[in-house]
Amino acid sequence: MNYRVIVEVTLREGIADPEGATIERALPALGFTGVTNVHAGKSFRLDVEATDESAALERATALAERLLSNPVIENATARLGKAGE
Amino acid sequence: MNYRVIVEVTLREGIADPEGATIERALPALGFTGVTNVHAGKSFRLDVEATDESAALERATALAERLLSNPVIENATARLGKAGE
Repeated sequence: MNYRVIVEVTLREGIADPEGATIERALPALGFTGVTNVHAGKSFRLDVEATDESAALERATALAERLLSNPVIENATARLGKAGE
Repeated sequence: MNYRVIVEVTLREGIADPEGATIERALPALGFTGVTNVHAGKSFRLDVEATDESAALERATALAERLLSNPVIENATARLGKAGE
């Protein structure tokens, strides 16, 4: 069976995030105040063939850590997508 | 109060996704079979000051649609982050 998995890749704590910092600095001038701690990352959606949900998540996590992220500076987390996601 | 909101920006249906296609093509040679429909996108994490959860989501959605995505080719969705996310 195919399971839809969503992988999010975020920068580790302490790694400079110039994209997030630039967005955060720009927001007040664009009319959005009270928005802080902006962090930019990547997301991936994929259909994983597996026998059950936990096997799908496990495969997606291995794939995300080995291929979709740089573990020196990034964290990868996988979660099951809801219907339609 | 501050609410942690996670915004995901994905390409609209039918828009070419060369990054996702390249990952999908590379996976079998790297030992991951049975993975299909790979789509690449962006994610943003932000803390939004608002009176309640629905107000935080509403502000984040407006911000995501106006500033974090290109509505011609991208969809933006905002969801509340769980604790620690």
